[in-house]
Amino acid sequence: MKLFYPEHSPRLKALLPKFSGRKLAVVGHARPDGDCIGSQVGLTRVLCALGYDAVCVNADPVPRRLQFLTQEMTFLRTDDILPVAEDYAAIFVDCADGARCGSRLQAAFPQPVAIFDHHISNNGFSDHDFIDTGSAATAEILAGMFFDLGFPVDTVAAQALYTGILTDTGQFRFPSTSRRTFLLAAELLARGAQPSEAGFELYERETIGKLRLLETFLKSLKLECAGQLCVGHLPRGIFAATDSTAEDTEGLVDYARSIEGVDVGALIEERDDGTLKASLRSKNPAYRLDRIAGLFNGGGHACAAGLSLTMEFNEFYPKLVEAITRQIAKVNTGMATES
Amino acid sequence: MKLFYPEHSPRLKALLPKFSGRKLAVVGHARPDGDCIGSQVGLTRVLCALGYDAVCVNADPVPRRLQFLTQEMTFLRTDDILPVAEDYAAIFVDCADGARCGSRLQAAFPQPVAIFDHHISNNGFSDHDFIDTGSAATAEILAGMFFDLGFPVDTVAAQALYTGILTDTGQFRFPSTSRRTFLLAAELLARGAQPSEAGFELYERETIGKLRLLETFLKSLKLECAGQLCVGHLPRGIFAATDSTAEDTEGLVDYARSIEGVDVGALIEERDDGTLKASLRSKNPAYRLDRIAGLFNGGGHACAAGLSLTMEFNEFYPKLVEAITRQIAKVNTGMATES
Repeated sequence: MKLFYPEHSPRLKALLPKFSGRKLAVVGHARPDGDCIGSQVGLTRVLCALGYDAVCVNADPVPRRLQFLTQEMTFLRTDDILPVAEDYAAIFVDCADGARCGSRLQAAFPQPVAIFDHHISNNGFSDHDFIDTGSAATAEILAGMFFDLGFPVDTVAAQALYTGILTDTGQFRFPSTSRRTFLLAAELLARGAQPSEAGFELYERETIGKLRLLETFLKSLKLECAGQLCVGHLPRGIFAATDSTAEDTEGLVDYARSIEGVDVGALIEERDDGTLKASLRSKNPAYRLDRIAGLFNGGGHACAAGLSLTMEFNEFYPKLVEAITRQIAKVNTGMATES
Repeated sequence: MKLFYPEHSPRLKALLPKFSGRKLAVVGHARPDGDCIGSQVGLTRVLCALGYDAVCVNADPVPRRLQFLTQEMTFLRTDDILPVAEDYAAIFVDCADGARCGSRLQAAFPQPVAIFDHHISNNGFSDHDFIDTGSAATAEILAGMFFDLGFPVDTVAAQALYTGILTDTGQFRFPSTSRRTFLLAAELLARGAQPSEAGFELYERETIGKLRLLETFLKSLKLECAGQLCVGHLPRGIFAATDSTAEDTEGLVDYARSIEGVDVGALIEERDDGTLKASLRSKNPAYRLDRIAGLFNGGGHACAAGLSLTMEFNEFYPKLVEAITRQIAKVNTGMATES
């Protein structure tokens, strides 16, 4: 049988015996998403099934909508693990660099024994790097290696890994979605993953507050730059007014980008602490949103970037529109380079 | 190799030679969706590649967002085919019964030579029925048989069949999504299907009018029945006011249902012709929405039903809420039966 990850799977098989008799901390990144939690649960579950002593560790709590993956799992927080950190060897998942797990965990685990990740910016920072930037999700890499090696993937691990793939592909929609992605999803279903349960938990448990926030955001949408830019705005105090939370802003900016003819969507939040936060999304990497965010001390990817700064909304809005308009004009005239 | 459709694929292989030298009309249902258009394109494309003379026929135009599948295909409308209908043998796809293609096409083709369908209510009405109600999409059945038989599936056919599966599974989320669904998606990607193109065309080409309509709908949402029912309302004239169309109401009711604790979501539209249209969606078949719609001369499925009637909104709203509240109370007390 052809292996899903011929470069990595034999290395994982060779590495595992070194974990015998050690306590293992499977560390994910702060503000965890579906791929992070799914990968943490999947890896920890399989390690335990193989007889290793592993536990999930995260600086932040498991988000409400991902808790269906963690009911049978222990998640330690930073304060739980710090006093005993030296007893543990750390395995990082879905962290592009060591800082992503939070500064206190990073200080406790400066040199992980292994990393499993798919981020393009990950240059490796552990003793044993398992990085595949061609994979759609860290959970995809893990699932592929587990199947390559015949490891025991039970229903809990299968559902977790499936959810990691589901969320990091935007429901199998992003360009990273490959034939391998679907083959692995099929195998995870064979081990008990339930797409309808994952869909229900992730997308059918909205709060009314989230919908009120969406309504506010939609109402605020403005087309700029001859319709190629769409900007939405959440004013200060909106979370209290709509009974929503900052977590509920997730996905809002995608509505701005989803409009026909719009190339760049933006969300500007006025935070209660007086700062502004902006999220930028484009349909095309030529817009180099990482550079536009960089003008305001932010960063990110070419198609998805963000920034935080202290400035009044009325001052920031025209500056942001001007910067994006300038880049759109460059792309329109073919003067933009991706380098 | 194990066949995807061992009952159907050998029958299709035996049937095809009978199509030699005949003109074939591949007929889909009126108001076509992604599975209908995808199945029509996929089947027609493969038949033509095999040397048969096939063309797509539909009573209604191809919706804007599905036109990316049909650029290289001819779609005949009812008026095109009626004068020459007797020259054609009809193959129906994704039609649960003969009436679904529209009354004039049904009259022209009272006895199709074959049907390909997955609807549970399809009792068969052709010379050669290929019906599998365990499949998530008609496109899934077609793709599975094509791969079983080694038929030539080119990039256009692959993208069309992939899109049929994608849309009829709600982006791989409905309970009908199976291991086979994902295996077939993987094979369609191997033949050139592009998930990111399909995702862009289907979900990233919204109009600003659609978003204004969504905003209106969200603003109108009311929780009833202690939060187990959520009803939204589009007043008369809203399409003109928001620069949207009746087609843009698609998917709105899902927002009402998506709220945590809500079991039934409803959308009531006041149409310009003085009628009301209501769409009902539940998370659980126990709510038997087909029966509730039936109280108002509507119908549908247990989890998805609809109705049209002539009544004032202010009169209809309490009647609908009362009917749904009564059914919810029955389910709450365990008195509902699914029979």
